[in-house]
Amino acid sequence: MAITVVGSVAFDSIETPAGRRDRCLGGAATYFSLAASYFTSVRVIAVVGEDFTAEQQSVFDARGIDTQGIERASGKSFFWEGSYLENLNEAKTHNTELNVFGSFQPKIPDAYRDSEFLFLANIDPVLQKRVREAMPKAKLVAGDTMNYWIKDHQDALREVLKGLDILLINDTETRMLAKNNNLVQAARGVLEMGPRMLVVKHGEYGATAFYGKSHDALGAKTFRAPALPLEEVVDPTGAGDSFAGGFFGYLASQKDLTPGAFRRAMFYGSVMGSFAVERFGTERLQQLSREAIDQRFGMFRELTHLD
Amino acid sequence: MAITVVGSVAFDSIETPAGRRDRCLGGAATYFSLAASYFTSVRVIAVVGEDFTAEQQSVFDARGIDTQGIERASGKSFFWEGSYLENLNEAKTHNTELNVFGSFQPKIPDAYRDSEFLFLANIDPVLQKRVREAMPKAKLVAGDTMNYWIKDHQDALREVLKGLDILLINDTETRMLAKNNNLVQAARGVLEMGPRMLVVKHGEYGATAFYGKSHDALGAKTFRAPALPLEEVVDPTGAGDSFAGGFFGYLASQKDLTPGAFRRAMFYGSVMGSFAVERFGTERLQQLSREAIDQRFGMFRELTHLD
Repeated sequence: MAITVVGSVAFDSIETPAGRRDRCLGGAATYFSLAASYFTSVRVIAVVGEDFTAEQQSVFDARGIDTQGIERASGKSFFWEGSYLENLNEAKTHNTELNVFGSFQPKIPDAYRDSEFLFLANIDPVLQKRVREAMPKAKLVAGDTMNYWIKDHQDALREVLKGLDILLINDTETRMLAKNNNLVQAARGVLEMGPRMLVVKHGEYGATAFYGKSHDALGAKTFRAPALPLEEVVDPTGAGDSFAGGFFGYLASQKDLTPGAFRRAMFYGSVMGSFAVERFGTERLQQLSREAIDQRFGMFRELTHLD
Repeated sequence: MAITVVGSVAFDSIETPAGRRDRCLGGAATYFSLAASYFTSVRVIAVVGEDFTAEQQSVFDARGIDTQGIERASGKSFFWEGSYLENLNEAKTHNTELNVFGSFQPKIPDAYRDSEFLFLANIDPVLQKRVREAMPKAKLVAGDTMNYWIKDHQDALREVLKGLDILLINDTETRMLAKNNNLVQAARGVLEMGPRMLVVKHGEYGATAFYGKSHDALGAKTFRAPALPLEEVVDPTGAGDSFAGGFFGYLASQKDLTPGAFRRAMFYGSVMGSFAVERFGTERLQQLSREAIDQRFGMFRELTHLD
């Protein structure tokens, strides 16, 4: 089944202990769609400026990603500059220029409207809600958000959460959203806001899925996927979006959304996140194969299985 | 097979968001031996003062733990006071009184000398080494340490590491010991110091075992056991020692130390750590059953298994 994703397509300047890259292709929708493209067909809704050229377009084309929903506006694309020099788990933002993204009004191509899978990447919740409402045929809707929207736009965000099947955020965001420092209690609080499933991304420690209204920390309504201990993290940018792309892409590729499919999706999310950080920007995600992905899936399985 | 453990038996005054307990029974050897006692017979080498009464003795007796190696000295027992008010993952120490522990010279009862499993809990590495040398029949030797010994007594600690089969420490200690912020590289560095296996305890995120001299982050020489997301952590004190007790106790109960036995031992370590934090001090560890332990083992298995 095809996924439609709405989110940012951007340029990033990134500095990590492994080096520096200026203005490489980035943005949540970019990482998400590249990761998901190894599992299913992907359609992108975004806006870019005149600095988005044939070079960037070819990255999407090479992976067969439908970009007719990427609007070309006059001006410059969204730009982010950050570093991870002290802590690979937390970016330090040096500069953010919204540019054409500041007045982004998502336009949904007619050809996208039959998408049964919808991913609302981290953008203004007002826009997330508008896209959700314009896609009534979506049968599974997942989304992301960030501390900024949780802190200063919680009313609008709460409206989005009501319509979400799956929310994917990190530990800090979960605690902040539920105003509770205990992760299990916070997860329950978030589930009460609407999503049927919450996937908490723990970075290098993997991710945990919480689901079911009456879930119990000791019961079967929790599932944890490990992350691979990595010898070298070159650039953590986009790891969470790549997790989401692997997770949701795998789900969209399945005929039936069984509990087993969700578990495997959690592992595929971890796998795609682990690939993303091996090179700067989207470099690694551009050159994968389903075979390499499944090989790493097997390693992850081996990493944590008893039998 | 019997385990001999050398380490502290102490009194702890603990404050957490769940409340406060004054002078409850604690110490690494106490947590370790209680946790291990559900799997195998345990013999303790320690020193206590006159404040160690029949009440504390009965805790060991009830679990069938051999305490003839616990020396009674004149003076007071080791005392620690700490809190976890801001961060459940890190204790803030308010007071440490070594008391009789300050001049501890481990004395090994003859009846202990045939122990094939030896655990060197977190004490002065000079004493760890002395006990190791006095127990030549030990065929599997594991140990723990802490930042203080890594920072200020590294030469003595290095001598201990040379004779260890398994070192169990946390993330911060691993990075500090190897002087490398990347966990996988740091783990390799620690393995080069002597231990055949390094178990890195990640607190609420579980634990990772690294082993084999030529280990590769992507290969089969890494194993990760999850921790259970817990609804309520009452008191984190002793979680790491309880992990070690479950891990090493399970190994000692096995006829053959197969790779599968090590994997299950990692899970049993996580299980015992998860029980320990449910009540203050050793309360929870005193009243378990092997049935309850195996039930939780099943939950852990379910938590992370694909099939």
